[in-house]
Parts: sequence; C-alpha cells; structure tokens
Amino acid sequence: MGRRIGIIGGTGYTGVELLRLLAPRDDVEVVFVSSRGQAGTRLDAVFPSLRGHTDLAFRDPAELAGAECDLVFFATPNGTAMRQAPALLDAGRRIIDLSADFRLQDIPLWERWYGQAHACPEQVAEAVYGLPEVNREAIRTARLVANPGCYPTAVQLGFLPLLEAGLVDASTLIADAKSGVTGAGRGASVPMLFAEAADNFKAYATDGHRHLPEIEQGLARAAGDVVALTFTPHLLPLIRGIHATLYARLANPAAAIDLQALYEARYRDEPFVDVMPGGSQPETRSVRGSNTVRLAVHRPQGRDTVVVLAVEDNLVKGAAGQAVQNMNLMFGLAETAGLDAPPLSP
Amino acid sequence: MGRRIGIIGGTGYTGVELLRLLAPRDDVEVVFVSSRGQAGTRLDAVFPSLRGHTDLAFRDPAELAGAECDLVFFATPNGTAMRQAPALLDAGRRIIDLSADFRLQDIPLWERWYGQAHACPEQVAEAVYGLPEVNREAIRTARLVANPGCYPTAVQLGFLPLLEAGLVDASTLIADAKSGVTGAGRGASVPMLFAEAADNFKAYATDGHRHLPEIEQGLARAAGDVVALTFTPHLLPLIRGIHATLYARLANPAAAIDLQALYEARYRDEPFVDVMPGGSQPETRSVRGSNTVRLAVHRPQGRDTVVVLAVEDNLVKGAAGQAVQNMNLMFGLAETAGLDAPPLSP
Amino acid sequence: MGRRIGIIGGTGYTGVELLRLLAPRDDVEVVFVSSRGQAGTRLDAVFPSLRGHTDLAFRDPAELAGAECDLVFFATPNGTAMRQAPALLDAGRRIIDLSADFRLQDIPLWERWYGQAHACPEQVAEAVYGLPEVNREAIRTARLVANPGCYPTAVQLGFLPLLEAGLVDASTLIADAKSGVTGAGRGASVPMLFAEAADNFKAYATDGHRHLPEIEQGLARAAGDVVALTFTPHLLPLIRGIHATLYARLANPAAAIDLQALYEARYRDEPFVDVMPGGSQPETRSVRGSNTVRLAVHRPQGRDTVVVLAVEDNLVKGAAGQAVQNMNLMFGLAETAGLDAPPLSP
Amino acid sequence: MGRRIGIIGGTGYTGVELLRLLAPRDDVEVVFVSSRGQAGTRLDAVFPSLRGHTDLAFRDPAELAGAECDLVFFATPNGTAMRQAPALLDAGRRIIDLSADFRLQDIPLWERWYGQAHACPEQVAEAVYGLPEVNREAIRTARLVANPGCYPTAVQLGFLPLLEAGLVDASTLIADAKSGVTGAGRGASVPMLFAEAADNFKAYATDGHRHLPEIEQGLARAAGDVVALTFTPHLLPLIRGIHATLYARLANPAAAIDLQALYEARYRDEPFVDVMPGGSQPETRSVRGSNTVRLAVHRPQGRDTVVVLAVEDNLVKGAAGQAVQNMNLMFGLAETAGLDAPPLSP
Repeated sequence: MGRRIGIIGGTGYTGVELLRLLAPRDDVEVVFVSSRGQAGTRLDAVFPSLRGHTDLAFRDPAELAGAECDLVFFATPNGTAMRQAPALLDAGRRIIDLSADFRLQDIPLWERWYGQAHACPEQVAEAVYGLPEVNREAIRTARLVANPGCYPTAVQLGFLPLLEAGLVDASTLIADAKSGVTGAGRGASVPMLFAEAADNFKAYATDGHRHLPEIEQGLARAAGDVVALTFTPHLLPLIRGIHATLYARLANPAAAIDLQALYEARYRDEPFVDVMPGGSQPETRSVRGSNTVRLAVHRPQGRDTVVVLAVEDNLVKGAAGQAVQNMNLMFGLAETAGLDAPPLSP
Repeated sequence: MGRRIGIIGGTGYTGVELLRLLAPRDDVEVVFVSSRGQAGTRLDAVFPSLRGHTDLAFRDPAELAGAECDLVFFATPNGTAMRQAPALLDAGRRIIDLSADFRLQDIPLWERWYGQAHACPEQVAEAVYGLPEVNREAIRTARLVANPGCYPTAVQLGFLPLLEAGLVDASTLIADAKSGVTGAGRGASVPMLFAEAADNFKAYATDGHRHLPEIEQGLARAAGDVVALTFTPHLLPLIRGIHATLYARLANPAAAIDLQALYEARYRDEPFVDVMPGGSQPETRSVRGSNTVRLAVHRPQGRDTVVVLAVEDNLVKGAAGQAVQNMNLMFGLAETAGLDAPPLSP
Repeated sequence: MGRRIGIIGGTGYTGVELLRLLAPRDDVEVVFVSSRGQAGTRLDAVFPSLRGHTDLAFRDPAELAGAECDLVFFATPNGTAMRQAPALLDAGRRIIDLSADFRLQDIPLWERWYGQAHACPEQVAEAVYGLPEVNREAIRTARLVANPGCYPTAVQLGFLPLLEAGLVDASTLIADAKSGVTGAGRGASVPMLFAEAADNFKAYATDGHRHLPEIEQGLARAAGDVVALTFTPHLLPLIRGIHATLYARLANPAAAIDLQALYEARYRDEPFVDVMPGGSQPETRSVRGSNTVRLAVHRPQGRDTVVVLAVEDNLVKGAAGQAVQNMNLMFGLAETAGLDAPPLSP
Repeated sequence: MGRRIGIIGGTGYTGVELLRLLAPRDDVEVVFVSSRGQAGTRLDAVFPSLRGHTDLAFRDPAELAGAECDLVFFATPNGTAMRQAPALLDAGRRIIDLSADFRLQDIPLWERWYGQAHACPEQVAEAVYGLPEVNREAIRTARLVANPGCYPTAVQLGFLPLLEAGLVDASTLIADAKSGVTGAGRGASVPMLFAEAADNFKAYATDGHRHLPEIEQGLARAAGDVVALTFTPHLLPLIRGIHATLYARLANPAAAIDLQALYEARYRDEPFVDVMPGGSQPETRSVRGSNTVRLAVHRPQGRDTVVVLAVEDNLVKGAAGQAVQNMNLMFGLAETAGLDAPPLSP
C-alpha cells in the first residue's frame, strides 16, 4: 500500500497538477484534497480532465486532522501553510509547502515583501529549501520542505554554475524572465482574461517582484557573497512555460573558459537538468508537462557577457513536479518516480 | 523483452506522437524509425522533447527489410503504405497503417477521392478498420489494420448509438467539425503559418473532404442503410483537438427516448469513450494528450433535432493513440497499456 | 461642430470599441462616457490604446442628465437601458441600445429569457431593430434603436436570402456558431481566463442561448412564417470574430437555383455585406476591426442541404460598428462614415 | 490627384501592410504593386481583407519602368533594392527601401552580415536612415531612404535619451527583445507553423542577429562613441508586436537624475513616441495596428541598472508605418497623415 497524501488547496493550478502527477501512481495514494469553496464537489466535476482518474470529492480543510496522511502538500495562497504547519508537524506529518511561507530565511525580509507578520518564524530555520540540485541530502530527511518558486527555480539553475565557479561579477546579474499565465494562479481577474492576455506581451512588477529576494538568497549561497540581480518578469501568452534569459559579465574575460563543459559537468548527474548542445536555444514547449529544465549557455560575439537560456514548465519543475521530486526524495523512492513521461510536444 | 516496433515516417506529428507514447514502455521497443530526409540524424535533434527518451537516429526507409520488427506503423502520406504492405505481410510482419490507404472498402471510391490508382486492392479486403469500439475482435487477429482518420473517429463514435438504434433520419445527418492545425501535418505551408492561422477561424473543404466517404462507410454499417452526411470541417487555432458538433433529426420525435441512457449503455465498457453527464459540454483540452473521446448528447428545446458533442485529441485517439490501442489488442496486451496517463490540463 | 455623443457604460469591450471608432471623427464628438466604478479616472488610464486620442475621464452615470447629448449609446448590461430610456427620450435625446432590452417585440418571451420584468414595455413597440440591411429606412427616423446581438447579426444576414425567397424548409434550420471571447464581455471570470480558454474549444448554452429568440424573431419576419432553429454557440480561442456555419434544407431540391446569384442580388447595394465568390470560405481575420460581414454559400455534393458561411467581427458589425452605422443613418450622415478603414490582417 | 506610389514585393506582410495604410488615402494613390509569383492575380484574391479597398492586380516587377510613380517602396528580400535603385533614382523616382540594403554605412560590415557583395555601394552614402526621430530634416529631402529594421527602431528609440545624455556605460548595453512571428515574413517554413510556434517561446540567433550592427551603428551615433550591445531576440507567439527590454548601467549612480523627465523632454514633440507615466509597463497590444512606440523607464530597487521597456507594432512603426511616415515627410504632407487611427485593442 502506498504512502498517504493530503493536498490542501486543490482547486488551483498547482493543486490539479499535483493530482495529474500523483493520480496514476501505485506507490502513493492521494486520500485527502481540500477546498474551502468546493467542499463536497467531486474533483472531476471541477476538472473534467480527471474523469476516470479519481473518485475523490473536495473536503473542508478542517477535516485534515482526521485524515491519516504521511505527507501534506500545501498548494495554498501565501500565509496559509505557516499557520497550519506547527500542528501538523507535531502530529508527525511531513510537509511540502508550495507557497512562499518558508522560502526566505530572513524573516524581516519576508515580512516586508509579503506584507504580513510571519506566523511561525521558529519553523523557518528548520525548513529545507526544496531545490534538489542544491539540497538533495537535506531534503531526504526534512520534515518541512519549502518548495521553490517558479522563477527562482529557472533562474537559480541557470546561474549556479557561473556563480559557484566564481566566474562572473555577482553585482551585475540580470534575469529577463517570461512566464505563461498559469503562474498567476486560477483566480478570476481582468488582466488574466483571454481577451486581455492573448496576442499580447508586457513586463510587470518591474520595480520589484516577490521572487527577487528568494532568488538573491539562493544566488548568494552559491556565490558565497552578496549578489545584486535586476529581475524583470514578463507575461507570455502561453498556458505553461517559463523562459529565463540570464545575463552575467565575466569577471575575467581574457581567461580561457569552456562554459559548455562547466555546465555539463555541474549537471551531469541531475535527472531533471538538461544541458543542451552548444549553440542551442531551448523552447518552452520542449518541456511542456515535464519536470525537466533545459539550459543553454552562450557568449555572443565572444564579448564579456554570458547569456544563459533556461526553460521549464512553471507548473511542473516550477511547482508541482518539483514538489513530487521532493516527495520522492523524502520517501526514499526513485527520484524520478512518476516524473518520467516525455513532454507533450507539439 | 518487448515486441519490436518499426515506424515508417517518423518526422511528422503522427510519428513523433507514436514515439511519445511508446518510448516510456518496457513491453514494446521501438527499434526502427525512418525518415527519407533526415536519415542519420538523431531523433532528439529534430524533436528536443525526446531528449533523454531515445538514442535512436532516423534511418532510410529502405533499411526496414533488415530490421526485425514484429509490427510496423506507417505514419506516411497516403500512397506509401499500399506500396510496401504486401512485402512486409509476406515477411510475417503485422502492419498498422495510419494513412488512408486501406480505409475504404470501395476501391473506385478510394481512387476518386485520393486521385490515384490503388496499388494493392487485394489487401484492402483483408484490412480491418481499426476502430476498436466497432471491430475489437477482428483487430486482435488482424495482420493489417487501417487506422481511422481523425475526423472519422470522433464523428462515428458520436453518431453510432443513434444509428445503431435506428432513432434518426440517416439521410439528413450533419457534422460540423473543427480541428486543430496538427491535423494538417508538419509540412511547411503558408496557410498553416502562425501568422495566418492564429487569431483566425474558417471552414475549408466545404464542398468535399476526403474523410466524408470514410465516415459515410462507417455510418452506413451502423445504420444498416445508406446515409447522407453534410460534413463541414473548420480550422481551429489550436495545436491539438477536434470538436465535432453532430446534428440528427429524430425519426419519431413523439416517442419517449432516454438519449443519455442510450449513450451510457452503448459505451459502458469502453475504456476510451466517456459519456459525460446530461447537460455537459466537453472541452477539447479535457482530452489533451489522452486517448479518450468525450461525448455529450443534447436535445435542445425538446425539439426534433439531437445534438451530439464529441471531443478528441486528433493526434491521440484521432491517430497515434488509437494506433497504439490497436497494437495492444493485436499483441494481446492490456488495451489501455501506455495510454492511461491523465490529460494535460490546463 | 459635430453632434454630441454620450456613452453609458464605457469600460466594457463594446464601450471602448465605440471610442475607437468615434474618437478620430470630426463630425461627431464624444462628450460623456460613464462608468460607475471608474468615475474620475481618465479613459486612457484604463485603456492605454486610447492615449493621445481622448482627454476624457469617466463620469458617474447620474451626471448624464447634465450633459447635452444628441444621442446616447447604452453599452451596459441587460436591464439598464430600459430603466433610463423613457426619461432620455422625453428629454429629446435619441438612443442606440447595444444591450438586449428592446430587441424582442414579445415581452413575455423577453421576460422568460432574461429572467426579469421589463421596465418599459411601452417603448418596445417603438424601438426599431437596428439591422440596416432590413430596417434601413425606419432606422433613419428612429428615436430608439435596438442594436442587434452579435450572433443574430451574422445568422440573420446569412439566412435572409434563402428565407425571403422561400427556398428552404424553415422548420429545420441549424446555426452552428463560434465566437471569440470578447463576446462574453470584460468581467472577470474563471472560464474566460487565458489559462482556461486558450488552446481550447467547446460548445456552451447548447440547451438554450438568449440569442435564439432574437434570431427566430428576425428569421420569422423574413420567412413570413414560424421558424425553428437549432442554435449551438461555441467558444473560440480568439479575441474577436464570429463564424456562423448555417445549414438549411432545400424545399425543392430538384429545382434549378443559382444560390450565388441569389446572394449577390440580395446584398448588391449593401456597403457592409460582402458575398464572396463561389467556392470561397471567409476567414474571421478578414474582417478583424471592420464592419463587414462576409458570406459564402455552398451546396455540398449537390445534395439537399445548403451551407452558408458567415463571418463578422463581433465587436464591430456584431456590436459597436453596427451601432455607429445606425448612428450615421439617424444623423443623415454617409452610412459608411468612420467605418471604411480596411481590416487589420494579418 | 495624389502622388503616385509603386510597391515592389506586394505579397509579403510588409507589402500588404503598406496597402492597408495607403489604400484609404486620397492624397496618395497606389498605382503599381508587383509580385513575381502572383502577377495577374488580383490583390484581394490573395488578401481578402482588401476586398472593396482595391481593384489592382499584381504585376510583374519588370513592368515598373512603365509605371509613372513618384515614389517606390521596396518590400522585398535583402539584395533586391540595391540592384534596382540606381536606375530608378536616375529616372527621378524616390525610393523607400524597407529591406536592409542601405541601412549600414560600413559596406564591409554589411557584406559580412548579409553574406553577399553590395551591388551599389556608391548609393549607400547618399541613403538617409529613415528614423524620423533622429533624421527628420534629412528625410524630407532624401531621394533614397533606408527604412530601419523592426528591432532597431524599438531598441534605438529606447536607448537614445540615455546615450545622448551620456548617462550610461555604453559598453555594457543589453537588449532582450521579443518579436511576433510576422517579423519572420510570409514564407512557408516549419518553425513558423502554428503547430510549432504557438504555445511556445524561445530565443533565436543568440550568437548574432543581423540587426545587431544596425542597432550599434545608431547607438554609436547617439553616444558619440563606440558601443557594445548584447542583443538577444526571442520569438513570441503573437502575430504583431515587438517588446524590447533594455538594460543599461548608470555611469554615475550617485548622481541625482530624473529619468522620467529626461525621456519626456526628448520625445515631447514626437507624434509617434509615447513616454508613459512613471511606473508603467507598456503592452504590445496597446500599439496593435498603430505607428506608436510606447516607452517606460524604470530604475528597479534604486540600483545602478536602468530598465527601459519599449513596444511597437513590428509591421507598422517597425516597417510599413514608419515607411509611410517617411513618405509623408518626403512629400511635405502632415507627418501623421494616414497614421492616426487608434490601435485595435482588445
């Protein structure tokens, strides 16, 4: 019999994506899915794509206490998991939080960017940042995993080899990032209407996006130093997909450096990071529905600026897939279990 | 060790979709994929979504003779399979042809619609039309399966219950069908450019589409009588997906008929036909990437006209998925093997 | 100096489209645009596309009384215009209502479909249905014009020649219609999110859409008889555009009929109805941003069913453009004034 | 009677856009439109959106000599205009070349990037680079105008105020640019198919795009110094629209600089450059179909890097609209003639 899984917040895109990934598995069993607004409604009435794959109905989140879960995913807005985590941990459940509640170690910084007091700062230190390519061993034994944001996953994986090797000026990093609309969640809003977002492209949050401190925290760890990142997110007329175009200035442009070899070496053993051949440009569709990040590294005109291209599916490696990867690690399962289907392309 | 599979014509959308479905499987092994134009190139150089899922390179179709395959898929333009089938069958290979070469039993009709002489009319009679919901038992033992067209699959499954029960006037059937662009294949053409097909919608082939005789052949079998269908295909700005809106006039409108019960009974045991609850409207995205056809049956205003709504993924149940379903039947495997992942939605 | 124009409800798609069409004109002047929620905000802060084209700010609808307008457009939800029309008419203003309040002459039928009591039934009889191709002369002198719905415009113009000539069975009409998302308005809703509506297609309101009685009223006038229409609307992943595929059975299939000549004769003098050459399929993008309806008439396989294809821009000929056409007629201006720019294609 | 206009290469997107902009005008008359492949075919048979707006048919380019044109637009592939320009100029015609033939003053540089010998280097020096915001007076009297590329227009207009004021380090400029698919032209190619480009995003030409030297030439003029630009173009799933996100490092970050005032002052009198209010993010759709470039300038986190956002319609200000603006200047007409319709939004 499989491990028992609970999902808090099952009506958003992250929730339904967890269900898509977990429903076909035999080694884990989703036993509890909550929705405050849809309690009592069958999941497949809200998500017809799940017809034939689940007989569950949404339940009120308050009923979680009575559900025997080995692990609980929080696919909730920021501010929910931090209120419920302590009691769940006390009751022996493990937690993967897909919201931002436990991602920043600097509590005042978190409170400034998220505009609220943190409800359980004591758990933040315990929380493991769930980027397996950095924290794999700690994740295996973690009780509480803070699953990374969608942009931070792509941007960190793209910059890490350069920063770990100390090859670039960490004070002039630029991440020009583009995300499909599911990154904004499933709440009704005028700017996310098809009639507004289709056949359109724009930047947003130019003067400060909440993922900025999360990314800088991770990059600083890699660099062993303070970093300064200019981060410009944009909204793509795509359902799924993030493309990060990263710029860094070489600290020593005259030195002979094989960037391609550097990236290949860094990610040689990573099941979900694909360093593409030199000269490549990864496409978002090449990872649609899959947990893979594809990277390509360029040095245009042989000048001083390195350009890294990174793509991921924001709902998979950028959210639910990475959460499942973390779950696999925590349960001692194969890290790729349930995550090995090819992308859907075209 | 798995059965050995060959794919002739691996660079089109149907070919790469076969690879997506077959690559992860342990019980079958793709050993040969041909491409006249790309022989020698790795598959994953043409289709980066397959990186990590296959190490094969395209081969020249002429090399097929030397490849020991149990079954060969033809994912080729019309006119290719009929030339190669006899030799392959003689050599003991089984064939699933995804083109139109063996779909019409009426050879002169085929020759008129396809504008060429048929190269092996003697095999046409042997060919089994690969719609498992009609021909399941014959498919199990077939040497040569004619895999149905994308429109014909949706339209036939939508009309069958009404016609088999003799409830409607078979001389006034209408199929208003809409298909995503992958139905047109992967050849370069101006009308299929993004700049032409996006943000646009139009009918095409209003005066006669090649799928018309195929559909009428199948509907006539079901009705046990001649049928006349008005078939209007349209081009949708979607990558994948067919929606067929079907209209039929009740032969005896005054009679009490439970259309919902009729449809549910007809498809109760079908693993890939989902009759939705009364009042539903299936969405194309609810079957994206999956082998399921979803149907809903309506009788608007309680008037004389029945409206059936049918959706499928044209590349899966409308092509490669149905071909794999047929392969499963031919090999005595579970019919749903490799076809049970949930759709990708959103 | 131009006639003075007021627009009630300026924040929806119909309102902003009226502004796009009217702002560049010298012969009319928009002097008042209301929005209950945005009063005080500049129009171009909500709609940056209008930057440089207007200096107006939204005003509270209650201030309309003080604005001296020759004509008022209602671009409001159903139920608003009927409450304000009597006082405005008494004050000598003329009205074009883009909502449904005055479209149905049968008040009980209106009340059933719109779920409310009609607030001024006495004005309904006076209202002129604003389809210039049918009611041009009455529109010129009307005080109150009921601007047609988007679907009704395309479906009526498509069927009229057949019904006026008595050539088809009016009891078996079918309209399979597809609309872009702007037809659903600018209100925030989950089903209209890009992430839900993109890369997707579905029918809706299969069992009854409010445009059905409006269409049947118009078709009955043309036929001089009761008609029965099966009307199936669908949602297209397009911003703008309606495609109506119309099916009618010939009353006398054996008779020699030149359908192409019939359509060309009916619309010869119509500036905004384009009958395309025989064998054509009009595309929605060919009318993007323009007031033209394009039609094509087919008789597939020479059988008994006539297929008419009709496209329009739902925000122009299906709403704001037709309203401007009506305004031109009411003011004695050239009917095409302000409506003669070519469509935006690609 | 209007000035007489010829268009060489009328079947591409630039050609049909010229026709959309010129057809409704009274002060100029398109008298000649060529197409090698479509000679004899009516324009509106190829472009149904032009039905009712022109009666012309495509003609063979060789017939241009006999057509009395005051001005000829070249909407041809690179390499055509440079072969025909000398004879036309000798015959007293003026030329606006929308290709790249006359854009680079450095002939060897041009020959390296465009891979061919230049056919008329002597005319290059005479050619005026048609960016009115820089060269307005020279354009008025020019015989030969080199119309700027789509990316170069957006990138130059975005960087100019910073460089002209000497505020930034010109050796570390970055332009992360994104273009809709019409930028690639109307030729049939697999990567531009809807099924390939839709629901997808990718970079291309990372290691060198032909617009790089053109942009650097213009920026160097503005800076009065050598510049180095990292230019990364990306392909957007849009029909029309370019978004350039520009990054520059302040030379003296400690100095008090009002960037907003700088931009507003630079473009105060420019009819087609809209500096948006502080904190804005321009959307591509806000300029759809119009000749306007919208800019916004940001300094995120008050750090050292300035971020400029620029949008344009690549077919209008990025091609045909700017060409018409240049034509207006050359003919002494109002610069905005025929270019003042509001954008089509939504």
